[in-house]
Amino acid sequence: MTETDTTFYVRYAETDTMGIVHHATYPVWFEEGRSHYLRVRGADYAQLEAAGYLLAVSELQARYLAPARYGQQVTIRTRLESLRSRSLSMTYEVLEASSGELLATGRTKLICTNREGQVVRILEEWRRVLDPDRFSGE
Amino acid sequence: MTETDTTFYVRYAETDTMGIVHHATYPVWFEEGRSHYLRVRGADYAQLEAAGYLLAVSELQARYLAPARYGQQVTIRTRLESLRSRSLSMTYEVLEASSGELLATGRTKLICTNREGQVVRILEEWRRVLDPDRFSGE
Amino acid sequence: MTETDTTFYVRYAETDTMGIVHHATYPVWFEEGRSHYLRVRGADYAQLEAAGYLLAVSELQARYLAPARYGQQVTIRTRLESLRSRSLSMTYEVLEASSGELLATGRTKLICTNREGQVVRILEEWRRVLDPDRFSGE
Amino acid sequence: MTETDTTFYVRYAETDTMGIVHHATYPVWFEEGRSHYLRVRGADYAQLEAAGYLLAVSELQARYLAPARYGQQVTIRTRLESLRSRSLSMTYEVLEASSGELLATGRTKLICTNREGQVVRILEEWRRVLDPDRFSGE
Repeated sequence: MTETDTTFYVRYAETDTMGIVHHATYPVWFEEGRSHYLRVRGADYAQLEAAGYLLAVSELQARYLAPARYGQQVTIRTRLESLRSRSLSMTYEVLEASSGELLATGRTKLICTNREGQVVRILEEWRRVLDPDRFSGE
Repeated sequence: MTETDTTFYVRYAETDTMGIVHHATYPVWFEEGRSHYLRVRGADYAQLEAAGYLLAVSELQARYLAPARYGQQVTIRTRLESLRSRSLSMTYEVLEASSGELLATGRTKLICTNREGQVVRILEEWRRVLDPDRFSGE
Repeated sequence: MTETDTTFYVRYAETDTMGIVHHATYPVWFEEGRSHYLRVRGADYAQLEAAGYLLAVSELQARYLAPARYGQQVTIRTRLESLRSRSLSMTYEVLEASSGELLATGRTKLICTNREGQVVRILEEWRRVLDPDRFSGE
Repeated sequence: MTETDTTFYVRYAETDTMGIVHHATYPVWFEEGRSHYLRVRGADYAQLEAAGYLLAVSELQARYLAPARYGQQVTIRTRLESLRSRSLSMTYEVLEASSGELLATGRTKLICTNREGQVVRILEEWRRVLDPDRFSGE
């Protein structure tokens, strides 16, 4: 299973004068999707940071198909797209929770660094957490 | 019951360089507590807005007792403190969900206005929603 | 001139636990670059909205090359990339202001809609504002 | 001079469905006022943190008198209200820049801590920076 769903209400503060959710909110939702993806696997990004490793976003893409509004619940569907030795890519779908309408899609590339900002290999234990199915030792 | 609890994870984007949740995040959490308070009663602030009424924050207070961090779940405990003809006050407690430690307290005063920004009376149906116990027709 | 620069200080609230500016801040900076681009031309996006038109972000891309930190000033360099009848694309560079180091690049596609969310043609007066050099009546 | 002004444009992302600046934006503006207050004195909060000291917000108050909107410039007027051995209080006024209309007022109490979160004395060199006029060695 390299896909997880998390569902929550739109926050009023996330909307703008257009009466819809501001587009800069979606990267925050993607990140919440990533956090959930790890938690479901019994992992925790806070642990990774405590161990001296960071997953930094190096690329972000988003497409906005239909607006989200206050009062709605949204589901963030998060998938691992690829896992390399020093980076990974994840994709996201934002769905209106009751209708299932696709509101937005996204992709982020993350690179693993140490606290000094140097790119490093992703630890094997984290590779197993991120991708238990396809992980093969590489 | 004029008190409700809602619990969610701290978002990474809500933290700052100190490694703790930024203090401007708490008013957003208080607002999420208010939204939940209304939803539990079968109401929805989006409906109130659709009917032409706004509840605008006119005063905000917060006390920060202990930091919240990424990786924690927080519970927002929201209470109706007072309900007047044109305004209401709500209080908030932010608790670390697993330990129950009190992280912050808050209070907001909200005034009811129409779309033109004029202060108006809170509709009776909304008074019943906000405070079913103590509501007495006034 | 279809390129403008605006410079401001990183805000503390824009940073995260990594000690760097959170990646979801950059779309907000891009938007501030767009606002500045219009102001420099004597236009104002608030006027466009008052006239019943919205420019909604339909696509967003960002690449993060080096972190920004609190204490730094950043320059947002905004360019009009293309102007079509119903949409436009703008690109962005985020530079550390004192060194000129390139921290991030971005691109957004915006579509013009009315208040009902229908895609409409961009008004000619706005086309002249957006692209005085290359505008040719189309 | 224990008062400084800084002026900037409202950002579109700071507004909400009401068409006005969301109330949780103001603490961020207050903080930007504090940052400016220090910069004007040749100091930099980033330096204080690099030296191992933090100024953490322990109390926040805000009153909202009139809404701010996208398209407006706001001035944040920041004053040092009191300076004690381990804490300080600052007050804020948010003014619409062109008319001078008072939109909001605020106050924050900040306490000085080390990286472990223990409350410590504010360094003398920082006391001089914060309050050059009234500083008397205490």
